[in-house]
Amino acid sequence: MEAIRSLQEEITAAIEELQFPEHPSELYDPIRYTLQLGGKRMRPVLCVLGSLVCGGRSMDALKPALGIELFHNFTLLHDDIMDNAPLRRNKPTVFSKWNTNVAILSGDVMFAEAFRLISEAPPAVLKRVIDCFIKASVEVCEGQQLDMDFELRNDVSIESYLEMIRMKTAVLLGASLEIGALCSGANAEIASRLYSFGTNLGIAFQLHDDLLDVYGNPEKFGKRVGGDIVSNKKTYLKLKAMEMADARVQKELNFWYSPQTHNEADKVEAVRAVFDSLNIRQETEALMDQYFVSASRFLEHDSFRNEYKQHLLHLAGALMQRES
Amino acid sequence: MEAIRSLQEEITAAIEELQFPEHPSELYDPIRYTLQLGGKRMRPVLCVLGSLVCGGRSMDALKPALGIELFHNFTLLHDDIMDNAPLRRNKPTVFSKWNTNVAILSGDVMFAEAFRLISEAPPAVLKRVIDCFIKASVEVCEGQQLDMDFELRNDVSIESYLEMIRMKTAVLLGASLEIGALCSGANAEIASRLYSFGTNLGIAFQLHDDLLDVYGNPEKFGKRVGGDIVSNKKTYLKLKAMEMADARVQKELNFWYSPQTHNEADKVEAVRAVFDSLNIRQETEALMDQYFVSASRFLEHDSFRNEYKQHLLHLAGALMQRES
Repeated sequence: MEAIRSLQEEITAAIEELQFPEHPSELYDPIRYTLQLGGKRMRPVLCVLGSLVCGGRSMDALKPALGIELFHNFTLLHDDIMDNAPLRRNKPTVFSKWNTNVAILSGDVMFAEAFRLISEAPPAVLKRVIDCFIKASVEVCEGQQLDMDFELRNDVSIESYLEMIRMKTAVLLGASLEIGALCSGANAEIASRLYSFGTNLGIAFQLHDDLLDVYGNPEKFGKRVGGDIVSNKKTYLKLKAMEMADARVQKELNFWYSPQTHNEADKVEAVRAVFDSLNIRQETEALMDQYFVSASRFLEHDSFRNEYKQHLLHLAGALMQRES
Repeated sequence: MEAIRSLQEEITAAIEELQFPEHPSELYDPIRYTLQLGGKRMRPVLCVLGSLVCGGRSMDALKPALGIELFHNFTLLHDDIMDNAPLRRNKPTVFSKWNTNVAILSGDVMFAEAFRLISEAPPAVLKRVIDCFIKASVEVCEGQQLDMDFELRNDVSIESYLEMIRMKTAVLLGASLEIGALCSGANAEIASRLYSFGTNLGIAFQLHDDLLDVYGNPEKFGKRVGGDIVSNKKTYLKLKAMEMADARVQKELNFWYSPQTHNEADKVEAVRAVFDSLNIRQETEALMDQYFVSASRFLEHDSFRNEYKQHLLHLAGALMQRES
């Protein structure tokens, strides 16, 4: 998709052009480091597409789009501390390259800078854009807290897991699209359709992430494959496996997911074998498809510009095929 | 000052009325805990007074005032992690009562909630209020970073120390007043005068804080007296002492401020004796007075309502006399 690629390049260039002070260097170097690690720039692309599909010009939403990307990177910085994650995109995370304090404070500044860019939305829609952004920001934090809570609980239902990933991952995709729509002057119904497209896509996206953790190609994934298993994360795969397993297999899973120390490679291999025996990969892909179809339905409205609707659907499809 | 006390009570009541969700409890309990620890509510009081002194109604600035108080409490939460501070207002800090992750994430939500309240400024001045708030937020983070950097440096000048406390402490007082002024519809010159009043007051306030750390009454101070000395902080008192000391006394100070482990009580006592011998308390009070006088001059303008100008001056005076 040439058009999406050129949009991505435009956004990447705009991110590279963001200026931060040289000093204090421990505050701003981690921000430059984080931003140049790259990534798919999915959220700002969705934001700009959200504007374009509603008839806006791409520039209407560019600054808020960059703000959302900064916010997302801020959450990664803080999440990596909380999750004690050594690597992100195959590079040391900020807290492991510098230290926890640096990661806390440079994250805080990124959050402030994100607000600054968000507040450059067109004045006529500024308050609505801010409201949408803050609602999503708070839900992202709530989602991260639930994610951590779930690590300590043994009664996490599939339903509450899906609600957690909706908050932690999906609402920001929804908000990206909605903010783009608002910047173009779209009405509330249209903006809300894009939000729902984004949240459904986001849940499918996170399920795909869960899959990649277990079945991804280590060279392309950018994180340690099996990391979720090692850290006893109750991902969809694990919860679905527990639901489908008989008593003997449940016992086996409980053995591997207990707090006691296992050899990490043995643990990943054993859990993956259980998943294979229960067709968990296919189960997960089926649920992803459901969310993907639900997402697509929200785009069925005459107000959307067909050209950009196709771009959105193509991008959504590509996200379901990605390897990292 | 009955009027200020009643304003403080009104603001305290408004803070108590702030509603946060029950769940996830590890996200919102620390926010409730932090807010009910109390404090002088100095920033929201200044914000509302900033509106009143410009002819506004107190309610014009109430929501942004609460936003600033939330922001301030957010910075305390994260600073306490970075400074490894066990106590705040004689109570366990959030990271020591819960843990670091809880303090990081509930702090992040407080920042988002602060922004939500800031964005309830009158629509006509919303962008200006946000710009003022973000500029101050970023400077507060820069100030905290410089503060940490200074702990590792031995070449901190008094000038750069004063610039650090301007950023870490004073700009938020300035911004509180400026945001109040903007909410009342004040013009840029008047708003800027209040900002300068606040920053000068803020530097005097922080110098007083430095004094309290060494000379405060342990029962009233709410923090460990001598904490700055124990953690080798280059406060104004320490820097001024180094400037005034002869070679022998400099050597003695360097001995106590070296990275090696000393008995904490011995260290505090020895450093305080050096300060006493050099009249550092009087030196600091003289500089505080200078900033206080500079602050007052910015209020000399006919546009300000005299009644509230007197309240501001009285409050400023009280801040210079406080014991905690």
